[in-house]
Amino acid sequence: MKSFQDPIVAVVIGSNRGIGLALVRQLLVNPMVDVVYAGCRDPGFACDLDDLVKTYGTRVVPMAVDVTNSESIEDLANRLEFDGAHPNLIVNCAGLLHDRDLQPEKRLEDVTLGGLRRSFDINSIGPVLLMKAVKQLIPNQQRVVIANLSARVGSLSDNRLGGWYGYRASKAAQNMFTRNIAIELGRRNKKLVCVGLHPGTVDTDLSRPFQRSVRTQSLLSADTSAKRLLDVIDSLSPEESGGFYAYDGSRIPW
Amino acid sequence: MKSFQDPIVAVVIGSNRGIGLALVRQLLVNPMVDVVYAGCRDPGFACDLDDLVKTYGTRVVPMAVDVTNSESIEDLANRLEFDGAHPNLIVNCAGLLHDRDLQPEKRLEDVTLGGLRRSFDINSIGPVLLMKAVKQLIPNQQRVVIANLSARVGSLSDNRLGGWYGYRASKAAQNMFTRNIAIELGRRNKKLVCVGLHPGTVDTDLSRPFQRSVRTQSLLSADTSAKRLLDVIDSLSPEESGGFYAYDGSRIPW
Repeated sequence: MKSFQDPIVAVVIGSNRGIGLALVRQLLVNPMVDVVYAGCRDPGFACDLDDLVKTYGTRVVPMAVDVTNSESIEDLANRLEFDGAHPNLIVNCAGLLHDRDLQPEKRLEDVTLGGLRRSFDINSIGPVLLMKAVKQLIPNQQRVVIANLSARVGSLSDNRLGGWYGYRASKAAQNMFTRNIAIELGRRNKKLVCVGLHPGTVDTDLSRPFQRSVRTQSLLSADTSAKRLLDVIDSLSPEESGGFYAYDGSRIPW
Repeated sequence: MKSFQDPIVAVVIGSNRGIGLALVRQLLVNPMVDVVYAGCRDPGFACDLDDLVKTYGTRVVPMAVDVTNSESIEDLANRLEFDGAHPNLIVNCAGLLHDRDLQPEKRLEDVTLGGLRRSFDINSIGPVLLMKAVKQLIPNQQRVVIANLSARVGSLSDNRLGGWYGYRASKAAQNMFTRNIAIELGRRNKKLVCVGLHPGTVDTDLSRPFQRSVRTQSLLSADTSAKRLLDVIDSLSPEESGGFYAYDGSRIPW
Protein backbone atom coordinates (compact mmCIF):
# COMPACT_ATOMS: atom_id res chain seq x y z
CA MET A 1 0.00 0.00 0.00
CA LYS A 2 2.85 2.31 -0.94
CA SER A 3 0.55 4.92 -2.48
CA PHE A 4 -0.70 5.86 1.01
CA GLN A 5 1.52 8.45 2.68
CA ASP A 6 -0.38 8.27 5.96
CA PRO A 7 -1.02 5.35 8.30
CA ILE A 8 -4.02 3.41 7.08
CA VAL A 9 -7.28 3.39 9.01
CA ALA A 10 -9.37 0.80 7.18
CA VAL A 11 -13.04 -0.10 7.27
CA VAL A 12 -13.96 -3.42 5.68
CA ILE A 13 -17.64 -4.38 5.56
CA GLY A 14 -18.63 -8.01 4.95
CA SER A 15 -15.48 -9.10 6.72
CA ASN A 16 -16.44 -12.41 8.31
CA ARG A 17 -15.74 -14.57 5.26
CA GLY A 18 -14.72 -14.68 1.63
CA ILE A 19 -12.98 -11.71 0.09
CA GLY A 20 -13.75 -9.38 3.00
CA LEU A 21 -12.03 -11.67 5.50
CA ALA A 22 -9.05 -12.15 3.18
CA LEU A 23 -8.72 -8.37 2.83
CA VAL A 24 -8.74 -7.90 6.61
CA ARG A 25 -6.03 -10.58 7.00
CA GLN A 26 -3.79 -9.06 4.36
CA LEU A 27 -4.25 -5.54 5.68
CA LEU A 28 -3.25 -6.63 9.18
CA VAL A 29 0.09 -8.07 8.06
CA ASN A 30 0.92 -4.68 6.55
CA PRO A 31 2.70 -2.45 9.10
CA MET A 32 1.30 0.65 7.39
CA VAL A 33 -2.15 -0.37 8.60
CA ASP A 34 -2.95 1.10 12.01
CA VAL A 35 -6.34 -0.47 12.51
CA VAL A 36 -9.02 -2.33 10.60
CA TYR A 37 -12.66 -1.86 11.56
CA ALA A 38 -14.10 -5.18 10.45
CA GLY A 39 -17.85 -4.97 10.03
CA CYS A 40 -20.07 -7.99 9.54
CA ARG A 41 -23.65 -8.80 10.36
CA ASP A 42 -22.92 -11.03 13.34
CA PRO A 43 -19.38 -10.82 14.74
CA GLY A 44 -20.45 -13.25 17.49
CA PHE A 45 -20.36 -16.01 14.89
CA ALA A 46 -17.27 -14.81 13.01
CA CYS A 47 -14.67 -17.29 14.34
CA ASP A 48 -12.05 -16.25 11.81
CA LEU A 49 -12.30 -12.65 12.94
CA ASP A 50 -11.94 -13.85 16.55
CA ASP A 51 -8.71 -15.57 15.56
CA LEU A 52 -7.43 -12.34 14.05
CA VAL A 53 -8.24 -10.50 17.28
CA LYS A 54 -6.19 -13.09 19.19
CA THR A 55 -3.24 -12.45 16.88
CA TYR A 56 -3.52 -8.72 16.24
CA GLY A 57 -5.28 -7.44 19.36
CA THR A 58 -6.74 -3.97 19.12
CA ARG A 59 -5.51 -3.47 15.55
CA VAL A 60 -8.66 -5.28 14.44
CA VAL A 61 -12.05 -4.10 15.67
CA PRO A 62 -14.95 -6.44 14.86
CA MET A 63 -18.21 -4.50 14.61
CA ALA A 64 -21.80 -5.56 14.03
CA VAL A 65 -22.70 -3.83 10.76
CA ASP A 66 -25.70 -4.75 8.64
CA VAL A 67 -25.79 -2.44 5.62
CA THR A 68 -29.59 -2.76 5.46
CA ASN A 69 -29.88 -1.42 9.00
CA SER A 70 -29.33 2.33 9.33
CA GLU A 71 -28.83 2.10 13.10
CA SER A 72 -25.99 -0.38 12.85
CA ILE A 73 -24.30 1.85 10.28
CA GLU A 74 -24.71 4.80 12.66
CA ASP A 75 -23.17 2.69 15.43
CA LEU A 76 -20.10 2.18 13.25
CA ALA A 77 -19.84 5.90 12.52
CA ASN A 78 -20.22 6.71 16.22
CA ARG A 79 -17.49 4.23 17.14
CA LEU A 80 -15.12 5.71 14.55
CA GLU A 81 -15.86 9.18 15.88
CA PHE A 82 -15.39 8.06 19.49
CA ASP A 83 -12.01 6.55 18.55
CA GLY A 84 -10.99 9.68 16.64
CA ALA A 85 -10.61 7.42 13.60
CA HIS A 86 -10.62 8.99 10.14
CA PRO A 87 -10.87 6.15 7.64
CA ASN A 88 -8.73 6.51 4.52
CA LEU A 89 -9.55 3.06 3.13
CA ILE A 90 -13.12 1.79 2.97
CA VAL A 91 -13.93 -1.47 1.24
CA ASN A 92 -17.53 -2.64 1.12
CA CYS A 93 -17.74 -6.37 0.39
CA ALA A 94 -21.28 -6.99 1.65
CA GLY A 95 -23.29 -8.43 -1.19
CA LEU A 96 -26.19 -10.74 -1.98
CA LEU A 97 -26.41 -13.08 -4.96
CA HIS A 98 -28.31 -15.97 -3.38
CA ASP A 99 -29.32 -17.38 -0.02
CA ARG A 100 -32.00 -19.66 1.37
CA ASP A 101 -34.74 -17.34 0.15
CA LEU A 102 -33.29 -16.15 -3.14
CA GLN A 103 -31.84 -17.76 -6.23
CA PRO A 104 -30.54 -15.74 -9.19
CA GLU A 105 -33.46 -15.45 -11.60
CA LYS A 106 -33.07 -17.36 -14.85
CA ARG A 107 -36.15 -15.72 -16.37
CA LEU A 108 -38.90 -13.23 -15.66
CA GLU A 109 -41.05 -15.94 -14.06
CA ASP A 110 -38.45 -16.28 -11.29
CA VAL A 111 -38.45 -12.58 -10.40
CA THR A 112 -40.13 -11.59 -7.13
CA LEU A 113 -40.76 -8.22 -5.55
CA GLY A 114 -39.14 -9.38 -2.30
CA GLY A 115 -36.05 -10.76 -4.02
CA LEU A 116 -35.48 -7.61 -6.05
CA ARG A 117 -35.98 -5.38 -3.02
CA ARG A 118 -33.45 -7.38 -0.97
CA SER A 119 -30.91 -7.20 -3.80
CA PHE A 120 -31.26 -3.42 -4.01
CA ASP A 121 -31.19 -3.05 -0.22
CA ILE A 122 -27.94 -4.97 0.25
CA ASN A 123 -26.06 -4.41 -3.02
CA SER A 124 -27.10 -0.85 -3.91
CA ILE A 125 -28.54 1.06 -0.96
CA GLY A 126 -26.19 -0.35 1.69
CA PRO A 127 -23.01 1.19 0.25
CA VAL A 128 -24.69 4.62 0.01
CA LEU A 129 -26.03 4.63 3.55
CA LEU A 130 -22.57 3.60 4.75
CA MET A 131 -20.96 6.53 2.95
CA LYS A 132 -23.66 8.91 4.18
CA ALA A 133 -22.88 7.86 7.77
CA VAL A 134 -19.09 8.17 7.56
CA LYS A 135 -18.78 11.05 5.07
CA GLN A 136 -17.86 13.65 7.70
CA LEU A 137 -15.11 11.42 9.13
CA ILE A 138 -13.20 11.00 5.88
CA PRO A 139 -9.97 13.01 5.70
CA ASN A 140 -9.95 15.83 3.17
CA GLN A 141 -6.22 16.38 2.72
CA GLN A 142 -4.78 12.91 2.12
CA ARG A 143 -5.14 9.93 -0.17
CA VAL A 144 -8.42 8.11 0.47
CA VAL A 145 -9.68 5.03 -1.36
CA ILE A 146 -13.29 3.92 -1.23
CA ALA A 147 -13.95 0.64 -3.05
CA ASN A 148 -17.33 -1.01 -3.49
CA LEU A 149 -17.15 -4.63 -4.54
CA SER A 150 -19.17 -4.79 -7.72
CA ALA A 151 -19.31 -7.50 -10.39
CA ARG A 152 -18.71 -7.66 -14.11
CA VAL A 153 -22.31 -8.85 -14.59
CA GLY A 154 -23.31 -5.38 -13.38
CA SER A 155 -21.92 -3.97 -16.64
CA LEU A 156 -24.74 -3.06 -19.02
CA SER A 157 -22.63 -3.32 -22.16
CA ASP A 158 -21.22 -6.68 -21.06
CA ASN A 159 -24.72 -8.17 -20.62
CA ARG A 160 -25.24 -10.61 -23.47
CA LEU A 161 -26.85 -13.52 -21.62
CA GLY A 162 -29.58 -11.86 -19.54
CA GLY A 163 -30.92 -13.45 -16.35
CA TRP A 164 -29.73 -12.70 -12.80
CA TYR A 165 -32.16 -9.79 -12.80
CA GLY A 166 -31.73 -8.63 -9.21
CA TYR A 167 -27.98 -9.07 -9.02
CA ARG A 168 -27.23 -7.42 -12.36
CA ALA A 169 -29.52 -4.43 -11.80
CA SER A 170 -28.49 -3.87 -8.18
CA LYS A 171 -24.82 -3.87 -9.19
CA ALA A 172 -25.53 -1.41 -12.04
CA ALA A 173 -27.31 0.80 -9.50
CA GLN A 174 -24.39 0.39 -7.09
CA ASN A 175 -22.02 1.47 -9.85
CA MET A 176 -24.08 4.63 -10.34
CA PHE A 177 -23.93 5.34 -6.61
CA THR A 178 -20.17 4.75 -6.65
CA ARG A 179 -19.81 7.27 -9.45
CA ASN A 180 -21.97 9.80 -7.61
CA ILE A 181 -19.93 9.39 -4.42
CA ALA A 182 -16.70 9.79 -6.41
CA ILE A 183 -17.97 13.08 -7.84
CA GLU A 184 -19.36 14.41 -4.55
CA LEU A 185 -16.40 13.54 -2.31
CA GLY A 186 -13.88 14.32 -5.05
CA ARG A 187 -14.99 17.96 -4.95
CA ARG A 188 -13.49 18.47 -1.51
CA ASN A 189 -10.66 15.94 -1.62
CA LYS A 190 -8.67 15.95 -4.84
CA LYS A 191 -6.72 12.89 -3.67
CA LEU A 192 -9.80 10.75 -3.19
CA VAL A 193 -10.44 7.64 -5.27
CA CYS A 194 -13.87 5.98 -5.23
CA VAL A 195 -14.36 3.00 -7.53
CA GLY A 196 -16.29 -0.17 -8.19
CA LEU A 197 -14.16 -3.31 -8.23
CA HIS A 198 -14.81 -6.66 -9.90
CA PRO A 199 -13.02 -9.31 -7.81
CA GLY A 200 -13.09 -12.04 -10.48
CA THR A 201 -14.93 -15.28 -9.97
CA VAL A 202 -13.72 -16.17 -6.51
CA ASP A 203 -14.06 -19.46 -4.65
CA THR A 204 -16.52 -18.22 -2.00
CA ASP A 205 -20.00 -19.10 -0.80
CA LEU A 206 -21.37 -16.47 -3.16
CA SER A 207 -20.05 -18.06 -6.34
CA ARG A 208 -20.02 -21.73 -5.27
CA PRO A 209 -23.26 -22.82 -7.00
CA PHE A 210 -22.11 -21.17 -10.24
CA GLN A 211 -18.49 -22.28 -10.51
CA ARG A 212 -19.18 -25.07 -12.98
CA SER A 213 -19.23 -22.58 -15.83
CA VAL A 214 -15.82 -21.16 -14.85
CA ARG A 215 -12.61 -22.76 -16.06
CA THR A 216 -10.59 -24.00 -13.09
CA GLN A 217 -7.65 -21.75 -13.89
CA SER A 218 -9.96 -18.67 -13.86
CA LEU A 219 -11.34 -19.43 -10.41
CA LEU A 220 -9.47 -17.32 -7.85
CA SER A 221 -9.00 -18.08 -4.18
CA ALA A 222 -10.25 -15.37 -1.84
CA ASP A 223 -6.63 -14.68 -0.85
CA THR A 224 -5.49 -14.23 -4.46
CA SER A 225 -8.44 -11.99 -5.29
CA ALA A 226 -7.86 -9.89 -2.15
CA LYS A 227 -4.18 -9.51 -2.97
CA ARG A 228 -4.93 -8.36 -6.49
CA LEU A 229 -7.68 -6.01 -5.35
CA LEU A 230 -5.27 -4.40 -2.87
CA ASP A 231 -2.77 -4.00 -5.72
CA VAL A 232 -5.45 -2.26 -7.80
CA ILE A 233 -6.45 -0.09 -4.82
CA ASP A 234 -2.81 0.87 -4.41
CA SER A 235 -2.36 1.71 -8.09
CA LEU A 236 -5.46 3.80 -8.80
CA SER A 237 -5.01 7.55 -9.17
CA PRO A 238 -7.62 10.25 -8.47
CA GLU A 239 -8.02 10.67 -12.25
CA GLU A 240 -9.39 7.11 -12.31
CA SER A 241 -11.92 7.79 -9.56
CA GLY A 242 -15.54 7.09 -10.47
CA GLY A 243 -14.65 4.11 -12.66
CA PHE A 244 -15.18 0.37 -12.60
CA TYR A 245 -12.09 -1.88 -12.53
CA ALA A 246 -11.35 -5.58 -12.53
CA TYR A 247 -8.91 -7.36 -10.18
CA ASP A 248 -6.27 -7.17 -12.93
CA GLY A 249 -6.57 -3.37 -13.08
CA SER A 250 -8.36 -3.26 -16.42
CA ARG A 251 -11.25 -0.84 -16.78
CA ILE A 252 -14.68 -2.42 -17.26
CA PRO A 253 -17.10 -0.54 -19.52
CA TRP A 254 -20.43 0.47 -18.04
CA MET B 1 -46.65 3.33 -36.97
CA LYS B 2 -45.95 1.91 -40.39
CA SER B 3 -43.46 -0.64 -39.12
CA PHE B 4 -46.30 -2.61 -37.51
CA GLN B 5 -47.90 -5.05 -39.96
CA ASP B 6 -50.62 -6.03 -37.50
CA PRO B 7 -53.27 -3.94 -35.77
CA ILE B 8 -51.80 -2.38 -32.65
CA VAL B 9 -52.88 -3.46 -29.19
CA ALA B 10 -51.18 -0.98 -26.90
CA VAL B 11 -50.58 -0.85 -23.18
CA VAL B 12 -49.50 2.53 -21.78
CA ILE B 13 -48.72 2.75 -18.06
CA GLY B 14 -48.63 6.15 -16.36
CA SER B 15 -51.25 7.38 -18.80
CA ASN B 16 -53.18 9.96 -16.80
CA ARG B 17 -50.86 12.88 -17.49
CA GLY B 18 -47.66 14.05 -19.10
CA ILE B 19 -46.00 11.94 -21.75
CA GLY B 20 -48.15 8.88 -21.05
CA LEU B 21 -51.37 10.79 -21.68
CA ALA B 22 -49.95 12.37 -24.83
CA LEU B 23 -48.94 8.93 -26.12
CA VAL B 24 -52.46 7.57 -25.53
CA ARG B 25 -53.97 10.55 -27.40
CA GLN B 26 -51.68 10.16 -30.38
CA LEU B 27 -52.14 6.41 -30.56
CA LEU B 28 -55.93 6.80 -30.60
CA VAL B 29 -55.94 9.08 -33.63
CA ASN B 30 -54.02 6.38 -35.53
CA PRO B 31 -56.44 4.00 -37.29
CA MET B 32 -53.85 1.19 -37.01
CA VAL B 33 -54.42 1.19 -33.26
CA ASP B 34 -57.19 -1.17 -32.24
CA VAL B 35 -57.18 -0.46 -28.54
CA VAL B 36 -55.12 1.26 -25.87
CA TYR B 37 -55.10 -0.12 -22.34
CA ALA B 38 -54.36 3.03 -20.39
CA GLY B 39 -53.04 2.19 -16.93
CA CYS B 40 -52.66 4.76 -14.17
CA ARG B 41 -52.78 4.66 -10.40
CA ASP B 42 -56.21 6.19 -10.05
CA PRO B 43 -58.32 6.33 -13.21
CA GLY B 44 -61.19 7.76 -11.11
CA PHE B 45 -59.26 11.04 -11.00
CA ALA B 46 -57.97 10.96 -14.58
CA CYS B 47 -60.30 13.50 -16.20
CA ASP B 48 -58.30 13.62 -19.43
CA LEU B 49 -58.62 9.87 -19.84
CA ASP B 50 -62.37 10.21 -19.25
CA ASP B 51 -62.52 12.72 -22.10
CA LEU B 52 -60.73 10.25 -24.36
CA VAL B 53 -63.27 7.57 -23.45
CA LYS B 54 -66.06 9.96 -24.43
CA THR B 55 -64.42 10.48 -27.82
CA TYR B 56 -63.02 7.03 -28.56
CA GLY B 57 -65.36 4.73 -26.64
CA THR B 58 -64.09 1.19 -26.12
CA ARG B 59 -60.86 1.82 -28.06
CA VAL B 60 -59.43 3.20 -24.81
CA VAL B 61 -59.61 1.13 -21.64
CA PRO B 62 -58.62 2.99 -18.46
CA MET B 63 -57.24 0.58 -15.87
CA ALA B 64 -56.06 1.03 -12.28
CA VAL B 65 -52.41 0.01 -12.45
CA ASP B 66 -49.86 0.80 -9.73
CA VAL B 67 -46.52 -0.69 -10.75
CA THR B 68 -45.56 -1.07 -7.09
CA ASN B 69 -48.61 -3.25 -6.47
CA SER B 70 -48.32 -6.80 -7.84
CA GLU B 71 -52.08 -7.38 -7.58
CA SER B 72 -52.97 -4.41 -9.74
CA ILE B 73 -50.49 -5.60 -12.35
CA GLU B 74 -52.07 -9.05 -12.23
CA ASP B 75 -55.48 -7.42 -12.71
CA LEU B 76 -54.21 -5.81 -15.90
CA ALA B 77 -52.84 -9.13 -17.17
CA ASN B 78 -56.12 -10.86 -16.34
CA ARG B 79 -58.12 -8.20 -18.18
CA LEU B 80 -55.91 -8.51 -21.26
CA GLU B 81 -56.33 -12.28 -21.16
CA PHE B 82 -60.10 -11.99 -20.69
CA ASP B 83 -60.27 -9.68 -23.71
CA GLY B 84 -58.08 -11.99 -25.80
CA ALA B 85 -55.71 -9.04 -26.16
CA HIS B 86 -52.10 -9.72 -27.15
CA PRO B 87 -50.20 -6.45 -26.69
CA ASN B 88 -47.65 -5.65 -29.36
CA LEU B 89 -46.82 -2.18 -28.01
CA ILE B 90 -46.09 -1.62 -24.33
CA VAL B 91 -44.88 1.74 -23.08
CA ASN B 92 -44.16 2.19 -19.40
CA CYS B 93 -44.15 5.87 -18.43
CA ALA B 94 -44.66 5.48 -14.68
CA GLY B 95 -41.77 7.15 -12.93
CA LEU B 96 -40.79 8.97 -9.76
CA LEU B 97 -38.35 11.86 -9.53
CA HIS B 98 -39.97 13.85 -6.74
CA ASP B 99 -43.22 14.21 -4.84
CA ARG B 100 -44.38 15.54 -1.48
CA ASP B 101 -42.14 13.09 0.36
CA LEU B 102 -39.09 13.03 -1.90
CA GLN B 103 -36.79 15.58 -3.47
CA PRO B 104 -33.88 14.61 -5.73
CA GLU B 105 -30.85 14.34 -3.44
CA LYS B 106 -28.20 17.01 -3.96
CA ARG B 107 -25.73 15.23 -1.69
CA LEU B 108 -25.29 12.14 0.48
CA GLU B 109 -26.85 13.91 3.47
CA ASP B 110 -30.15 14.10 1.57
CA VAL B 111 -30.28 10.37 0.85
CA THR B 112 -32.83 8.32 2.81
CA LEU B 113 -33.53 4.61 2.88
CA GLY B 114 -37.23 5.25 2.22
CA GLY B 115 -36.57 7.56 -0.72
CA LEU B 116 -34.15 5.17 -2.39
CA ARG B 117 -36.50 2.22 -1.89
CA ARG B 118 -39.41 4.11 -3.44
CA SER B 119 -37.27 5.12 -6.43
CA PHE B 120 -36.26 1.50 -7.05
CA ASP B 121 -39.82 0.26 -6.51
CA ILE B 122 -41.38 2.60 -9.06
CA ASN B 123 -38.60 3.21 -11.58
CA SER B 124 -36.82 -0.16 -11.62
CA ILE B 125 -38.92 -2.97 -10.17
CA GLY B 126 -42.27 -1.81 -11.58
CA PRO B 127 -41.34 -2.31 -15.24
CA VAL B 128 -40.04 -5.84 -14.51
CA LEU B 129 -43.12 -6.95 -12.59
CA LEU B 130 -45.26 -5.60 -15.43
CA MET B 131 -43.35 -7.65 -17.99
CA LYS B 132 -43.43 -10.73 -15.78
CA ALA B 133 -47.24 -10.44 -15.61
CA VAL B 134 -47.85 -9.95 -19.34
CA LYS B 135 -44.99 -12.03 -20.79
CA GLN B 136 -47.19 -14.97 -21.80
CA LEU B 137 -49.62 -12.65 -23.63
CA ILE B 138 -47.06 -11.09 -25.94
CA PRO B 139 -47.24 -12.32 -29.55
CA ASN B 140 -44.28 -14.43 -30.71
CA GLN B 141 -44.62 -14.10 -34.47
CA GLN B 142 -45.03 -10.39 -35.11
CA ARG B 143 -43.35 -7.07 -34.47
CA VAL B 144 -43.56 -6.12 -30.79
CA VAL B 145 -42.12 -3.00 -29.18
CA ILE B 146 -41.62 -2.66 -25.44
CA ALA B 147 -40.39 0.76 -24.36
CA ASN B 148 -39.50 1.79 -20.83
CA LEU B 149 -39.24 5.51 -20.31
CA SER B 150 -35.78 6.04 -18.92
CA ALA B 151 -33.73 9.24 -18.62
CA ARG B 152 -30.35 10.41 -19.83
CA VAL B 153 -29.30 10.95 -16.19
CA GLY B 154 -29.55 7.17 -15.86
CA SER B 155 -26.48 6.88 -18.11
CA LEU B 156 -23.38 6.04 -16.07
CA SER B 157 -20.93 7.45 -18.59
CA ASP B 158 -22.97 10.64 -18.93
CA ASN B 159 -22.86 11.28 -15.16
CA ARG B 160 -20.47 14.18 -14.58
CA LEU B 161 -22.44 16.20 -12.02
CA GLY B 162 -23.49 13.60 -9.46
CA GLY B 163 -26.51 14.07 -7.20
CA TRP B 164 -30.02 12.76 -7.89
CA TYR B 165 -28.91 9.50 -6.25
CA GLY B 166 -32.20 7.63 -6.28
CA TYR B 167 -33.33 8.72 -9.73
CA ARG B 168 -29.99 8.09 -11.44
CA ALA B 169 -29.43 4.67 -9.87
CA SER B 170 -33.01 3.48 -10.32
CA LYS B 171 -32.89 4.41 -14.01
CA ALA B 172 -29.53 2.64 -14.45
CA ALA B 173 -31.12 -0.43 -12.82
CA GLN B 174 -34.16 -0.05 -15.06
CA ASN B 175 -31.88 0.03 -18.08
CA MET B 176 -30.31 -3.26 -16.97
CA PHE B 177 -33.77 -4.79 -16.61
CA THR B 178 -34.72 -3.49 -20.05
CA ARG B 179 -31.64 -5.14 -21.53
CA ASN B 180 -32.40 -8.41 -19.73
CA ILE B 181 -35.99 -8.38 -21.00
CA ALA B 182 -34.77 -7.66 -24.54
CA ILE B 183 -32.48 -10.70 -24.38
CA GLU B 184 -35.03 -13.01 -22.78
CA LEU B 185 -38.02 -12.15 -24.98
CA GLY B 186 -35.84 -11.76 -28.07
CA ARG B 187 -34.97 -15.47 -27.87
CA ARG B 188 -38.50 -16.48 -28.81
CA ASN B 189 -39.54 -13.50 -30.91
CA LYS B 190 -36.92 -12.34 -33.40
CA LYS B 191 -39.08 -9.34 -34.32
CA LEU B 192 -39.24 -8.02 -30.77
CA VAL B 193 -37.71 -4.68 -29.78
CA CYS B 194 -37.28 -3.78 -26.11
CA VAL B 195 -35.56 -0.49 -25.34
CA GLY B 196 -35.10 2.32 -22.86
CA LEU B 197 -36.17 5.74 -24.16
CA HIS B 198 -35.07 9.19 -23.03
CA PRO B 199 -38.00 11.55 -23.71
CA GLY B 200 -35.98 14.78 -23.50
CA THR B 201 -36.67 17.38 -20.87
CA VAL B 202 -40.41 17.64 -21.18
CA ASP B 203 -42.75 20.24 -19.72
CA THR B 204 -44.47 17.95 -17.19
CA ASP B 205 -44.98 17.83 -13.43
CA LEU B 206 -41.89 15.63 -13.19
CA SER B 207 -39.49 18.16 -14.66
CA ARG B 208 -41.20 21.40 -13.60
CA PRO B 209 -39.02 22.23 -10.57
CA PHE B 210 -35.88 21.66 -12.66
CA GLN B 211 -36.68 23.47 -15.90
CA ARG B 212 -34.71 26.61 -15.02
CA SER B 213 -31.50 24.91 -16.10
CA VAL B 214 -32.96 24.00 -19.52
CA ARG B 215 -32.84 26.45 -22.40
CA THR B 216 -36.38 27.30 -23.50
CA GLN B 217 -35.88 25.90 -26.97
CA SER B 218 -34.77 22.53 -25.50
CA LEU B 219 -37.90 22.13 -23.37
CA LEU B 220 -40.33 19.88 -25.19
CA SER B 221 -44.08 19.80 -24.79
CA ALA B 222 -45.50 16.42 -23.82
CA ASP B 223 -47.15 16.22 -27.26
CA THR B 224 -43.89 16.88 -29.10
CA SER B 225 -41.99 14.38 -27.00
CA ALA B 226 -44.70 11.75 -27.47
CA LYS B 227 -44.69 12.28 -31.24
CA ARG B 228 -40.93 11.89 -31.43
CA LEU B 229 -40.94 8.85 -29.15
CA LEU B 230 -43.53 7.19 -31.40
CA ASP B 231 -41.31 7.98 -34.40
CA VAL B 232 -38.38 6.31 -32.64
CA ILE B 233 -40.55 3.33 -31.66
CA ASP B 234 -41.60 3.02 -35.29
CA SER B 235 -38.04 3.20 -36.59
CA LEU B 236 -36.25 0.78 -34.27
CA SER B 237 -35.25 -2.59 -35.66
CA PRO B 238 -34.79 -5.84 -33.69
CA GLU B 239 -31.02 -5.42 -34.09
CA GLU B 240 -31.34 -2.27 -31.95
CA SER B 241 -33.24 -4.08 -29.20
CA GLY B 242 -31.69 -3.89 -25.74
CA GLY B 243 -30.38 -0.35 -26.28
CA PHE B 244 -31.05 3.09 -24.85
CA TYR B 245 -32.25 5.80 -27.25
CA ALA B 246 -33.14 9.47 -27.06
CA TYR B 247 -36.30 11.06 -28.53
CA ASP B 248 -34.25 12.04 -31.59
CA GLY B 249 -33.32 8.42 -32.27
CA SER B 250 -29.67 8.77 -31.20
CA ARG B 251 -28.22 6.00 -29.08
CA ILE B 252 -27.26 6.95 -25.51
CA PRO B 253 -24.17 5.23 -24.06
CA TRP B 254 -24.62 3.27 -20.87
